[in-house]
Amino acid sequence: MSDGASRAIAILGGTGPAGMGLALRWARAGETVLIGSRDQQRAKDAAEKIREKIGSRASVSGVENSAACAASDILVLTVPFEGQATLLKQLKPAIRTGSILIDATVALAAGVGGRASRTLGVWQGSAAQQAAELVPKGVSVASAFHNLSAELLNGDEALDCDVIVCSDDASAAQVAFALAAKIPGVRAIDGGKLENSRTLEQITALLIGLNIRHKGHAGIRITGLPPAAYRTAVKP
Amino acid sequence: MSDGASRAIAILGGTGPAGMGLALRWARAGETVLIGSRDQQRAKDAAEKIREKIGSRASVSGVENSAACAASDILVLTVPFEGQATLLKQLKPAIRTGSILIDATVALAAGVGGRASRTLGVWQGSAAQQAAELVPKGVSVASAFHNLSAELLNGDEALDCDVIVCSDDASAAQVAFALAAKIPGVRAIDGGKLENSRTLEQITALLIGLNIRHKGHAGIRITGLPPAAYRTAVKP
Repeated sequence: MSDGASRAIAILGGTGPAGMGLALRWARAGETVLIGSRDQQRAKDAAEKIREKIGSRASVSGVENSAACAASDILVLTVPFEGQATLLKQLKPAIRTGSILIDATVALAAGVGGRASRTLGVWQGSAAQQAAELVPKGVSVASAFHNLSAELLNGDEALDCDVIVCSDDASAAQVAFALAAKIPGVRAIDGGKLENSRTLEQITALLIGLNIRHKGHAGIRITGLPPAAYRTAVKP
Repeated sequence: MSDGASRAIAILGGTGPAGMGLALRWARAGETVLIGSRDQQRAKDAAEKIREKIGSRASVSGVENSAACAASDILVLTVPFEGQATLLKQLKPAIRTGSILIDATVALAAGVGGRASRTLGVWQGSAAQQAAELVPKGVSVASAFHNLSAELLNGDEALDCDVIVCSDDASAAQVAFALAAKIPGVRAIDGGKLENSRTLEQITALLIGLNIRHKGHAGIRITGLPPAAYRTAVKP
């Protein structure tokens, strides 16, 4: 992201609450955002909503998911788990070699009629590892953004939450760090290998359970690491 | 714990770093602590170390694990996972009906020659649920204290970490809340049912991974909940 707004961020399945919140925050930070949806009109409407919020300077547009893949090599996936595999298989021909996919999927049991405070077992270990299995060769996957409250993302306040990034690819991790640090209040933390996404995804279900129990918008902060472990946006 | 120091806290397997740290903090808070070990002499030596740190006013003694169970109805279990089932089976006749067992066990893969940043699958779902299966009838289990750095517990500073408590029994949860809130800096949070311990235990492995990667003593804070969700010690 050192090239500023010249590299568009495509948010696949971006019309849901998490995708909209991320789009809002990144557009506000001056990034060019493509909201992707199965339905082009829905994507355009979502982009229009964000422009209404932050004004005409916002570089946000809405396109069909495969057009978003064709137009960008930074892809953020924010779909319910039950749609993840189908969408990735469908988009496989559209995803460009060298793209980076940042997966925020959580296998909540709610997706199959269970509770949002419980998760499903995923054969590969986590939704992010499933994504890594389904992307074309030459595409790197990072796991991030599971534990940001969609409701708070869609607001105006700085967040009080850290984003742990897991990836087996250093450049994919770097892109995720940079995107996380563009959200006010967020610190990005290197969480190591993609397999560690298992725990990140479980934490989402725990936070949803806390929200139901205590009526809040829970997030997590990691304490006790040296300052260099926390990556925050450098103020210009 | 409303009866102050009159109800002893038995820490089973309490001579390890986590058990010693909890013993130190609770003894400092004026609680009566029984450090349990397989080896009575080792338990006595551990208690002596704590008295050396905090002085003769400390009410800490060391006894064999089954003697600790016979002498107390608040049992805190801090053993490596690979010893948990064997110890609970062995202690079954010694654990008093009506006792509360607070389990802090994490099934780290390190226990079977793997990595401390990975966990084992436990048939029951979590180590705490395994404990619940193994205790005698009439004994309630809560899950807590997994995510406190043993190194920081053994120090003098306030901790910067929350303790999420999971239990199917309201009174077991209350005892765990009260014990957590006696540790300076710690806030206790009701995490719901015992099954949610699955995630608490995974978080420990994540924090160990962060410690290895970033050379720190990681903990977690939960943000975004209303003030009533955070239970802290009432200052006298």
